[in-house]
Amino acid sequence: MHKIYFQCDYAEGAHPEILERLAASNLEQTPGYGEDVYCEQAADKIRRACGDETLAVHFMVGGTQANLTVIDAALRAHQGVICADTGHINVHETGAVESCGHKVLALPGEDGKITAKQVRRVCEEHDSLGRDHMVQPGMVYISSPTELGTVYHADELKALHEVCREYGLYLFLDGARLGYGLTASDNDLTLPLLAEYTDVFYIGGTKVGALFGEAVVISSEFLKKDFRYIMKQKGGLLAKGRLLGIQFDTLFTDGLYFRIAARANAYAERIREAMGRRGYPFLAPNHTNQIFVEMPDRDLERLGESFVYSYDRRVDETHSCVRFCTSWATKEENVEALIRAIEDLQAGDD
Amino acid sequence: MHKIYFQCDYAEGAHPEILERLAASNLEQTPGYGEDVYCEQAADKIRRACGDETLAVHFMVGGTQANLTVIDAALRAHQGVICADTGHINVHETGAVESCGHKVLALPGEDGKITAKQVRRVCEEHDSLGRDHMVQPGMVYISSPTELGTVYHADELKALHEVCREYGLYLFLDGARLGYGLTASDNDLTLPLLAEYTDVFYIGGTKVGALFGEAVVISSEFLKKDFRYIMKQKGGLLAKGRLLGIQFDTLFTDGLYFRIAARANAYAERIREAMGRRGYPFLAPNHTNQIFVEMPDRDLERLGESFVYSYDRRVDETHSCVRFCTSWATKEENVEALIRAIEDLQAGDD
Amino acid sequence: MHKIYFQCDYAEGAHPEILERLAASNLEQTPGYGEDVYCEQAADKIRRACGDETLAVHFMVGGTQANLTVIDAALRAHQGVICADTGHINVHETGAVESCGHKVLALPGEDGKITAKQVRRVCEEHDSLGRDHMVQPGMVYISSPTELGTVYHADELKALHEVCREYGLYLFLDGARLGYGLTASDNDLTLPLLAEYTDVFYIGGTKVGALFGEAVVISSEFLKKDFRYIMKQKGGLLAKGRLLGIQFDTLFTDGLYFRIAARANAYAERIREAMGRRGYPFLAPNHTNQIFVEMPDRDLERLGESFVYSYDRRVDETHSCVRFCTSWATKEENVEALIRAIEDLQAGDD
Amino acid sequence: MHKIYFQCDYAEGAHPEILERLAASNLEQTPGYGEDVYCEQAADKIRRACGDETLAVHFMVGGTQANLTVIDAALRAHQGVICADTGHINVHETGAVESCGHKVLALPGEDGKITAKQVRRVCEEHDSLGRDHMVQPGMVYISSPTELGTVYHADELKALHEVCREYGLYLFLDGARLGYGLTASDNDLTLPLLAEYTDVFYIGGTKVGALFGEAVVISSEFLKKDFRYIMKQKGGLLAKGRLLGIQFDTLFTDGLYFRIAARANAYAERIREAMGRRGYPFLAPNHTNQIFVEMPDRDLERLGESFVYSYDRRVDETHSCVRFCTSWATKEENVEALIRAIEDLQAGDD
Repeated sequence: MHKIYFQCDYAEGAHPEILERLAASNLEQTPGYGEDVYCEQAADKIRRACGDETLAVHFMVGGTQANLTVIDAALRAHQGVICADTGHINVHETGAVESCGHKVLALPGEDGKITAKQVRRVCEEHDSLGRDHMVQPGMVYISSPTELGTVYHADELKALHEVCREYGLYLFLDGARLGYGLTASDNDLTLPLLAEYTDVFYIGGTKVGALFGEAVVISSEFLKKDFRYIMKQKGGLLAKGRLLGIQFDTLFTDGLYFRIAARANAYAERIREAMGRRGYPFLAPNHTNQIFVEMPDRDLERLGESFVYSYDRRVDETHSCVRFCTSWATKEENVEALIRAIEDLQAGDD
Repeated sequence: MHKIYFQCDYAEGAHPEILERLAASNLEQTPGYGEDVYCEQAADKIRRACGDETLAVHFMVGGTQANLTVIDAALRAHQGVICADTGHINVHETGAVESCGHKVLALPGEDGKITAKQVRRVCEEHDSLGRDHMVQPGMVYISSPTELGTVYHADELKALHEVCREYGLYLFLDGARLGYGLTASDNDLTLPLLAEYTDVFYIGGTKVGALFGEAVVISSEFLKKDFRYIMKQKGGLLAKGRLLGIQFDTLFTDGLYFRIAARANAYAERIREAMGRRGYPFLAPNHTNQIFVEMPDRDLERLGESFVYSYDRRVDETHSCVRFCTSWATKEENVEALIRAIEDLQAGDD
Repeated sequence: MHKIYFQCDYAEGAHPEILERLAASNLEQTPGYGEDVYCEQAADKIRRACGDETLAVHFMVGGTQANLTVIDAALRAHQGVICADTGHINVHETGAVESCGHKVLALPGEDGKITAKQVRRVCEEHDSLGRDHMVQPGMVYISSPTELGTVYHADELKALHEVCREYGLYLFLDGARLGYGLTASDNDLTLPLLAEYTDVFYIGGTKVGALFGEAVVISSEFLKKDFRYIMKQKGGLLAKGRLLGIQFDTLFTDGLYFRIAARANAYAERIREAMGRRGYPFLAPNHTNQIFVEMPDRDLERLGESFVYSYDRRVDETHSCVRFCTSWATKEENVEALIRAIEDLQAGDD
Repeated sequence: MHKIYFQCDYAEGAHPEILERLAASNLEQTPGYGEDVYCEQAADKIRRACGDETLAVHFMVGGTQANLTVIDAALRAHQGVICADTGHINVHETGAVESCGHKVLALPGEDGKITAKQVRRVCEEHDSLGRDHMVQPGMVYISSPTELGTVYHADELKALHEVCREYGLYLFLDGARLGYGLTASDNDLTLPLLAEYTDVFYIGGTKVGALFGEAVVISSEFLKKDFRYIMKQKGGLLAKGRLLGIQFDTLFTDGLYFRIAARANAYAERIREAMGRRGYPFLAPNHTNQIFVEMPDRDLERLGESFVYSYDRRVDETHSCVRFCTSWATKEENVEALIRAIEDLQAGDD
């Protein structure tokens, strides 16, 4: 019997509507490298959803590529990028940012987030200390949802926006799981607010219904200039760019992107409730599709017979922290099976 | 009326069998990042086709990414890569190799190719001249078919192999259009010979039937080590790696890859013959899917009413060099339409 | 009246014997780029002092240059360098290492030092976790004396050596202030031990009697290969290389290097004792030429009227941590003046 | 007997006045990293000599370092630097520019120079062709004197200036031998013109009387910003920066820089005349301190018994091209000895 995956949100292919669109357009002939009508159409829909017709929208295949391209496009040689110590670029991209020559200036995050106050302190310290012997902060990188599944709220993002303006830093939001963030029950952000408060952000497709793809949305005039050159240089300009256009066009038609993300969140809430009833503590309270939970190893072993989760780290001799993920592809029957399994774990384990 | 594209070999999606396989497997759950059964299966088939079970096979999304990853994996900081002046890495990748810190050492190519003799001369000169004030050659990059559609022959590749061994250079073959090369009428190379003579090469999917994808085949033990780290660092490790595995598995089942490439070559030959009958000179005689031909502007204008080709450069006041391309997706009826149009161009144009 | 500098150990020019040698040889004609007899002679003396005739010795102008050249020569693209969070490459070189494409993997230091145990933990975690999604440790960078003036002891260095061998890491010791370390009262390291336990280290001249210059000593065969290429590429091959050769030849004649360093340490001890008598706490107990001391701001203000020190950071509302430095050039009369001034600070300040 | 060096212009130390100044100031205490009074004083003199008080002046140790720092400070990731194929950055710096991520776009030089017309053509072609698939020209690098000893004239520089303005390129002049250029008999450039027509240039000290050092003069406001950060990052911020300040202050006092350069040129002219009388052809007619001359191998062998020259390349079976160099340190008696030796070569050699 196959185990059921709750390990990540990229275990399946794409939403069926996307596959249908790809098949339907398969033998059409279009120009390459994103200069086709599908990309233009998808970009238009995204611009409209962001409420700003002047935004530049580029489609890239994956998140690491999007991150390194945006960051290298923004920074001068001596500049670095501030991020939370748990940030994806700091931990899980094999030094992609450093490979482009830039230091990641990691700050201790709280629930995966950093604050405007922390950014201000870094900038003040830089200005008061060695200055030209130290890397100059040039950008703030955040992700929402974060690596811990938490989201930034509008006031937090606005404060980051303001401190970035004050110190001349770009603000970049990695939205690899943006759909799950924007549809979380505690969310108060919107695409227009993201476009207003950041210089650049991206809307993740890979983890939210697409085969692959991230839509990079740029409001900064400096970053708009020549962005495609840097995409190409980093290997991020897909020959058959329309594959990205078609996918995002589908996701941004009739709200599909948000609908499938919301459903994944709802499933995660149900699992979270079942876990909560068992008294398992959560690593960082959140309402998106990732559940970071601390469980007795004995229970994990039992669940592991039927379900795949992602191991995070050991807490103590008998407990571990793990991640369960729902996604746009999660089936209700599997959610129910997991909940039943949680409920069946015998009392007295803890 | 839509014009018919002969502009490039990536104007359509993928061979229908690939789309079917993607749809059929769409909701299966697999591990990410190329660690799934489809990738393993495809790699096995490629290893078998190359006659060497020890080869490492990695799947990447595009050619520029494959080129920069392979080259950066191979070279130390002070080393550069020798290639023809027309080489893709020298001209059409926005400095991707330099972006990784390495100089491209361009040599004058003949019909897009460089020779073992040229490589030897570069190495001898390096050893006799400034040495540590000059970039040290560390790799030879060739592509087959070349940018001009010509192919390397077995004796040429063997000679390059030998000079590379002698001087301690890696030999890397970019096979973005490899299918068209291996099925060309004047070809005497095989996958086993490629695996034997090069340290690393790749089998292009993007231009030969896949939605996207290049299969990097590594025989060098040094390059095998930690190659996935560098793929990840450069943004080249696809989250849903199985998309690549499924595509290459399909292409390497029942010889699909070679069948569709051979058909494209046959179509190109028919077009070439029609052009030859009109007396148009070819830029570099070849038997693959790209036709570089010199034509009067008047004829080009006429053809341009119904067909899209790729403009290369002006030859003189009344003539230009252009490229017509067939591909795995080219329809016979369109080939025939183009041939008729060529035949209909009035005599006395030239 | 001029204030007296105890701010750093590079406030003066060079030991007079060096200036004399430079003047005496000034109009001799020698080959450039370190291929002269003076460099060869100095390298020989250093090899002899290290007890290993097979060592490669190269002379570079400054420490940042030496650090980035050594690190870039050693690491492949996906590798990073482990160091203490206070490490010079992590904090005070404007991202020079990242500029070469490599991440600095900072560990919490104790008194500026890291341990073999910490290195082992990083390597074990890397092997057990994401692996190819994370930067691979490729080198351990330490300095001795550290940024806090403390030194590594022979057993600590041996333990680092062993863990590096076990996990395939290079061990690199930055010896910008090596003279002060090797002549500290608590030192048990020697040049031969350094050559044995590290893969590469350097002997700092800039801060120990030379106008400028660091002698890079390499025992690793891999690093020896082509090191000059990378020196040249990074702008670190001095045209009139003999200037470096002459300086190190002088410093390594009749033990001048160690004599002048020992004297600076002795002066620092005397100052430290005076401070100790006043009850000022030291940041990290050490016996080299740097004194990191916590003092009441009122006292600092008084001392600041006649002496220049280096401000480190605020401790609380009325206390700061500062650095006083002696050097090869420190005059005894100035040491005495400083001690008198410390003694004259009125009691009850604290 | 020692042979006499005419091999290069960096075979000796420094002009005696410089050594005297270094000795006189040796035990003064100054702040480090170029923030001392000597640097300020020297910068002021250079600004005055350039007739522009708003120029930024920074002192660096060597030419490769200055080149890579300036270029990396100026360019965005996707931009490259246009230069002559013989340009120092293209041939003799081990890929220093590529190491910073930027392609050198080499154009065929004539007598080591490139023209505004060539630059315009490159920019036009870039704009009309692939654009974002090709490296974008971002800077023009020239040197004067060039690698062949020729100089740019005011009208040529002005034309380059204009085309650079038109296409948004920086214009950078490498003046490693600037003194010899500005005092050549056919020169019509001045420091004020250089400051007006370029965005950045440098005044070479290493080859014109200093122990080492290049004074980088920046007029571009963009390049002025944060230049010291990048100097530090590349290892180019000398700890005892005053050593550079003192040297340039000396060179720019009472016109020493120009006087010693002019004398070297005069000596070269005398040698050139003697060679001309023997009928030897010159590689690129010039009036600076480098003589590129084609001579019979037999004559070279004879001269080689007493003199050292620099071998350039073989011309045919019995002739070679070599370089003879004078410098600020060349002694008149040695010039006379060389001329006698040339005259003594027996007729009928050729």
